[in-house]
Amino acid sequence: MLSIINSFFSSPPPLGTVSSGLLSPVLASTPEAEYGSWVLAGVLLTLVVVYAASKLGGELSKRINLPPVLGELVGGVVVGVSALHLLMFPETGATADSSAIMNLLQVLGGLDAEAVTRIFQSQSEVISVLAELGVIVLLFEIGLESDLRELSKVGSQAAIVAVVGVAAPFLLGTVGLVTLFHAPVVPAVFAGAALTATSIGITSKVLSELGHLKSTEGQIIVGAAVIDDVLGIIVLAVVAGLAKTGEVDLLNVAYLIVSATVFLLGSIFLGNFFNKSFVAIADKLQTRGALLIPAITFAFVMAFLANVIHLEAILGAFAAGLVLDETDKRKELDQQVLPIADLLVPIFFVTVGAKADLGVLNPAVAENRAGLVIAAFLILVAIIGKVMTGWAVFGQPGINRLAIGVGMIPRGEVGLVFAGIGSASGVLDKPLEAAIIMMVILTTFLAPPLLQSVLEESEEASASDSPVLSAAE
Amino acid sequence: MLSIINSFFSSPPPLGTVSSGLLSPVLASTPEAEYGSWVLAGVLLTLVVVYAASKLGGELSKRINLPPVLGELVGGVVVGVSALHLLMFPETGATADSSAIMNLLQVLGGLDAEAVTRIFQSQSEVISVLAELGVIVLLFEIGLESDLRELSKVGSQAAIVAVVGVAAPFLLGTVGLVTLFHAPVVPAVFAGAALTATSIGITSKVLSELGHLKSTEGQIIVGAAVIDDVLGIIVLAVVAGLAKTGEVDLLNVAYLIVSATVFLLGSIFLGNFFNKSFVAIADKLQTRGALLIPAITFAFVMAFLANVIHLEAILGAFAAGLVLDETDKRKELDQQVLPIADLLVPIFFVTVGAKADLGVLNPAVAENRAGLVIAAFLILVAIIGKVMTGWAVFGQPGINRLAIGVGMIPRGEVGLVFAGIGSASGVLDKPLEAAIIMMVILTTFLAPPLLQSVLEESEEASASDSPVLSAAE
Repeated sequence: MLSIINSFFSSPPPLGTVSSGLLSPVLASTPEAEYGSWVLAGVLLTLVVVYAASKLGGELSKRINLPPVLGELVGGVVVGVSALHLLMFPETGATADSSAIMNLLQVLGGLDAEAVTRIFQSQSEVISVLAELGVIVLLFEIGLESDLRELSKVGSQAAIVAVVGVAAPFLLGTVGLVTLFHAPVVPAVFAGAALTATSIGITSKVLSELGHLKSTEGQIIVGAAVIDDVLGIIVLAVVAGLAKTGEVDLLNVAYLIVSATVFLLGSIFLGNFFNKSFVAIADKLQTRGALLIPAITFAFVMAFLANVIHLEAILGAFAAGLVLDETDKRKELDQQVLPIADLLVPIFFVTVGAKADLGVLNPAVAENRAGLVIAAFLILVAIIGKVMTGWAVFGQPGINRLAIGVGMIPRGEVGLVFAGIGSASGVLDKPLEAAIIMMVILTTFLAPPLLQSVLEESEEASASDSPVLSAAE
Repeated sequence: MLSIINSFFSSPPPLGTVSSGLLSPVLASTPEAEYGSWVLAGVLLTLVVVYAASKLGGELSKRINLPPVLGELVGGVVVGVSALHLLMFPETGATADSSAIMNLLQVLGGLDAEAVTRIFQSQSEVISVLAELGVIVLLFEIGLESDLRELSKVGSQAAIVAVVGVAAPFLLGTVGLVTLFHAPVVPAVFAGAALTATSIGITSKVLSELGHLKSTEGQIIVGAAVIDDVLGIIVLAVVAGLAKTGEVDLLNVAYLIVSATVFLLGSIFLGNFFNKSFVAIADKLQTRGALLIPAITFAFVMAFLANVIHLEAILGAFAAGLVLDETDKRKELDQQVLPIADLLVPIFFVTVGAKADLGVLNPAVAENRAGLVIAAFLILVAIIGKVMTGWAVFGQPGINRLAIGVGMIPRGEVGLVFAGIGSASGVLDKPLEAAIIMMVILTTFLAPPLLQSVLEESEEASASDSPVLSAAE
């Protein structure tokens, strides 16, 4: 009986999800509709929690003169697995009954445990994808705010910063672990690899919030973070191959280098031609979203392509932003992307914070204690190895070298990819694993305030250097 | 080994979903990460298809002087189950291997059938929720564009239009089916119930596109569509109870009437107080999204509440829009919601079109032929029963009564809830089911052009009535 209905639009489940409150009081016979309705309810409530956490955290952070994004991360920690248990994810080992939101829905809807588990899974999946769309839109926006010509000018500096920022922490970390801590080589290599990451999302957001994205320092950091991402993919391929087969798959490495280079350079090169057709298309459209929809579609196509060729989706979105920055529609587009970024980006940062289990910092747990000394060493290397990159920059006299180095510090979500893979492949023991996670948490949360203070100091310094401003004082 | 990593942020699966391209070339050992990466790829590609369909359809529709939303619906039909099979949904009985997008991903990623099925499920779930968020944002926007005072002024007219628009098609349909087609009473009652629906989404979008939302006619239609939605929930509770137990659960009906009334009036009443604190909050915030995030959070809270008390989420979003329309931040807010609506609303309309299986109109299928005469009758009643509502309006001389009636015609997704429930409860036979679906399709696709032509005629008439304009001609 259901077949025709089901073969037509809005059959019970999706309808349920659109207008299902409608069904719930009366129809035990359409559990699918019930289910869809509660997924929507779960997503809505989760988003309310996300926005409350991001605004409370962001505003408090701003009041005490720190970058708002730090507050969003901390807000996420407060509502997440470390504290209030409102925003939980199955991937962190959480079950539906540990989620306060799911408990509320269960009471409100009189749902059984199985239904709540399914709703929890679906809701988490939706929030995870929204968080990913958030970081994609963020990188698209950063691309739009960046200037391709400015970025090309500092391209070689950015490349050197990236290479030093990968090589130095990797070598220092690996050699240090082997010599000082007598760690076996493979786990040491893994820990070294985890030290190479830079979270382009966190670092570019802080720069944007501080108004330093367009400065020479800012463009070097963003360029270096992008190249770091690509290098990270290659390092990961090498170490993962090493852990799995004991060998390095040179063909795969070559493939990654070629595809990354072709993609990034190719998209920027072809972008010059695409620019013109983009403007022509946007000018011809007469319905709502005439500029925004082609732009977002382009960003999503590039993100998809980057994802499919085994780069990261965010690199595609960044390239798309760089390309569209060159059009004369840039200003208008900036303005329209702003509210979309405001809506989606906080989901990313709050989610990152919510998934951070500060329990790893608890010294009462044996593994954490055992990892503590290694963690202290890794954190030291993580900071020194990145800070020194600033002094690798050449031909830029008067540049704030410390700011560049500090900008590369946050490992964020990227550092955890390495830890996660090391863990999944069984290479890391518990103390080393805990130590890596501590390193990632601390660099992630320390970098925003550090970067701000370093940038503000340099502003004050240049302000007092400036005769005009000095005279005015 | 995974436990600590998993108990910390961004463990393999979500990480995978963020930066998973990273993992895919090297790690068969983290299928979860693989999986998340391909879900993201599927969502990105689906959104690209959705935007292409909505823009191509919308622009073509505009060129031939029809409302863009009709083109978006038709664009959805073209990419959906009826034609290109790009945008498919498991709820319509589609499997992963019938989806062109999933086939592409399978080839690109070398994925096995089980993985593709899981990716298909997750991707469809995410797109469905995005479509729901789309119609929630649409109704929030319509609420912002509506004027509470104007709406209150025409409140009693809207109520009469809604009541007549529910009673007339219901009685005509039910009695007609019993007397003319000798249908049993319960199926006839179900078909009659399906005739009562009005798609508030489609009708308000057409009014907005034609610039008639703020006219007296427009406000009567929107008000009536909202009341129709509430009445529909009550009618549904009655018929569903009838089909299930043979009795009407008066307690449930009373609960629905009371909760709907309390919610809508209460939210508007309390909204007057909330308005002031909302503006005060927005004024105090200093970080990005200071106005937008509190507003969207309010809309989501209201949508959640409406959903949980068994109303529809869109009614809550509409009420939120009405409340915030009363603040002096309205204009600024309007402007910021615009790009978000541009981004999310097309997902809803394209999805509705994509799920519409025009196969039900194919006369080669026996059930469709058998249903054809009934369908013709239902369509006639569907149109007459709603068009006559215009003449129920009192005390508004010179009003375009035809436009009001035509505005109530589209059944859209709401009509299918009824058909779906009748089908699920086993009350409807195949021909009657097919007939109801044909009625819903035709009223949905006919209403936008009809409404446009009726509104434009009245404009021309009033233009030639106007002495100034006549003189100018």
